[in-house]
Amino acid sequence: MNPTLEIFSQGEEVVTGQTVDTNAAWLSEQVVSLGFTVTRHTAVGDKLNDLIALLQEISVRADCCLCTGGLGPTSDDLTAEAVSKAFNLPLEFDPLAFEQIQHFFILRNRVMPESNRKQALFPKDSKRIDNAWGTAPGFSLQIGRCWFAFMPGVPSEMRHLFLESIQPTLSSRFVLRPSQLVTIKTIGIGESAIQQYISAIEIPDKVQLGFRASPDDVQTKLLFPQDYPERDRVILVEKVAAELGDHVFAIDGLGQTSGDLVFVVDQLMAAGKHTLAAVETASQGLLAAKCMGAEWLLESRYQQSLEKMGVTDLLASAKTLASAIQQTSAADFVLVQLYAGDNKIFHDKDQAIILYNVLLTKHGFYQTTHPVAGPAPRKQNQAALLALDLLRRYLVSIHGRPHPSNDNHIRRIEAGGLTLYVNE
Amino acid sequence: MNPTLEIFSQGEEVVTGQTVDTNAAWLSEQVVSLGFTVTRHTAVGDKLNDLIALLQEISVRADCCLCTGGLGPTSDDLTAEAVSKAFNLPLEFDPLAFEQIQHFFILRNRVMPESNRKQALFPKDSKRIDNAWGTAPGFSLQIGRCWFAFMPGVPSEMRHLFLESIQPTLSSRFVLRPSQLVTIKTIGIGESAIQQYISAIEIPDKVQLGFRASPDDVQTKLLFPQDYPERDRVILVEKVAAELGDHVFAIDGLGQTSGDLVFVVDQLMAAGKHTLAAVETASQGLLAAKCMGAEWLLESRYQQSLEKMGVTDLLASAKTLASAIQQTSAADFVLVQLYAGDNKIFHDKDQAIILYNVLLTKHGFYQTTHPVAGPAPRKQNQAALLALDLLRRYLVSIHGRPHPSNDNHIRRIEAGGLTLYVNE
Repeated sequence: MNPTLEIFSQGEEVVTGQTVDTNAAWLSEQVVSLGFTVTRHTAVGDKLNDLIALLQEISVRADCCLCTGGLGPTSDDLTAEAVSKAFNLPLEFDPLAFEQIQHFFILRNRVMPESNRKQALFPKDSKRIDNAWGTAPGFSLQIGRCWFAFMPGVPSEMRHLFLESIQPTLSSRFVLRPSQLVTIKTIGIGESAIQQYISAIEIPDKVQLGFRASPDDVQTKLLFPQDYPERDRVILVEKVAAELGDHVFAIDGLGQTSGDLVFVVDQLMAAGKHTLAAVETASQGLLAAKCMGAEWLLESRYQQSLEKMGVTDLLASAKTLASAIQQTSAADFVLVQLYAGDNKIFHDKDQAIILYNVLLTKHGFYQTTHPVAGPAPRKQNQAALLALDLLRRYLVSIHGRPHPSNDNHIRRIEAGGLTLYVNE
Repeated sequence: MNPTLEIFSQGEEVVTGQTVDTNAAWLSEQVVSLGFTVTRHTAVGDKLNDLIALLQEISVRADCCLCTGGLGPTSDDLTAEAVSKAFNLPLEFDPLAFEQIQHFFILRNRVMPESNRKQALFPKDSKRIDNAWGTAPGFSLQIGRCWFAFMPGVPSEMRHLFLESIQPTLSSRFVLRPSQLVTIKTIGIGESAIQQYISAIEIPDKVQLGFRASPDDVQTKLLFPQDYPERDRVILVEKVAAELGDHVFAIDGLGQTSGDLVFVVDQLMAAGKHTLAAVETASQGLLAAKCMGAEWLLESRYQQSLEKMGVTDLLASAKTLASAIQQTSAADFVLVQLYAGDNKIFHDKDQAIILYNVLLTKHGFYQTTHPVAGPAPRKQNQAALLALDLLRRYLVSIHGRPHPSNDNHIRRIEAGGLTLYVNE
């Protein structure tokens, strides 16, 4: 049996809906992968009696509780006081914590408000958790069966504290049998198509198969028990990935390439020392925006759909445009995205635009065509991703083949509403 | 005293962190504005005993409970069963609900799986809530002091059911005294600067003042009790807004212009029938991406920082570039964004880039300069917003003044690290 864990978020802004509680989901993912069973999330506001009641409930119900929020300097930050009252532990002043808080202000050339003094008060017997990223130190303590850790609610501070202080403590305090999660990330194929593709593969009962569709990819998840032989794990993952073919852009959890599509493209572009000039229509700047900071993206321009100007053969136009840009640009790749569909179609979730992506490299033109339906933001996002995906497919193909002349062996792929013709 | 309300989310995907629970935040905002006090959010997985325990707890603690999830056809959808067991109410078959579910499949030319039959089972004495957007009907029932409403977990279906069935019921079942929330949205000024600006204004005790900093704006929130005179409310809001000056781009809750900065710019550009050509550097396509679908954005191009190419006088370069684009572009406005800072500075959260925005219109050049620090995604986002904000300030200034020659009355604004010179 895994130890049980609860997540507890404090803050009026959470219960009133001003803030979406992303901390709870982030922490849950972390601890599930460590080997905990998460049984409950609870959020309460800044009312002392609610906090006290909840802390007492959890202390007799769970093996571990991770709490966020309520450690700030203002009067509505009540966590330490609530712990003190709930478990009858007087608050004690911690001079070292106080010094750290003062130091935080000195470094920033600011005067420490008197109210920050309360952040150095901790319930008796608790252990301080230093916070180098803000003024609020965390603390932990064991109450009966339950080990509590209290962290600030600011997500960036919370994540630092968790990864650097709490996670190592959890691993030493609890007997954990972490499962192995492998995530196969795909683009250009839907969840139901994936299910059909892999339906012939026999997945052992003790391996949990799951899917997760996000705006940026569809993930196929395989959760292996700790005692599953590594070799068998690799074989099964490779079987699944093989069925999904070129739609797979990354596999997490096997020590292979990871990250999102942009990260994968970024790695490939940098490794090959390539540079790119791009033309965007449907993605309207989002392709460039996603590649923020990438040195290989020399330029990108957005222009309204050419169809507006009466252009009908978009594929030919895209090629002409790419060739023209190649003449003037310093980039060795030119990527042009055009689409068929007027503004009305673009904003009608039930109608599809047709995307035409053309990539021009020294090996010639590569192109993809995709119908994309859904709300306008989905069309914009898919347009950016599918253009980048053409780049990825090309780069993967040349990486895997040292002789460019072999490029024409790249097969034609037709799946999930996507057709890829290469080197035609 | 407002009636108390709890939000309860069911689903393994929520407690394991696979899904961020946006339903809870959305519902909370809705019911707070109706006049409820939200006391708790709780999420539990697909374990029958946990569900039963939680339902029993809430039934004696809250006046109202809104529940999402667990109404699907599969074996892990346990809500109706849990309610039945928790309150000893046998499940009853509802032929009309069954007919609706069958109809849903017939409309879509699909065969109804046998498992969907369970979605027509409801606890005795409950009232069905029809769901025209999916297969899972909701239901409601009163248990002791608490009125429960159960909705599907799919956000789009949940929102429909809430707005069309549950909200009207809440308004008739409960005596509610909704507060009036006014939100003043600003850009280019921080929370602490706002506090200083408005410190001289006397805010009555019964008006709650709050702040919320998001990546896209800083919001000053004034929550008025229901019996606060409307005239006094308007006067106070106008006083606060006046202190914040041109930083205010929208006010929600007074029947005035609303929406985010892009929406405001979109309205102004469309009203004036203007068109824009833009050059982006630091925002790298994000300005264009934010304006998705806007007909007035004719073109936008991203290029890497000119500083890389040894350009030192960025402001002069921006003007030259804007003039050159004006020669060839069909757009009547040209907006050029350049910045000082290399890639290292851009990616160092503790260092600031200096943004130079130049807007060229038939009235000449307008410009802003802003230092922007923080992580790279913040710099990118602020760069997009601050460029759009220059456009907004210009448009507001010409809207308010019918004679262009009066433009030079626009004052110089220097606040929150922002300097705006106009018509120099």
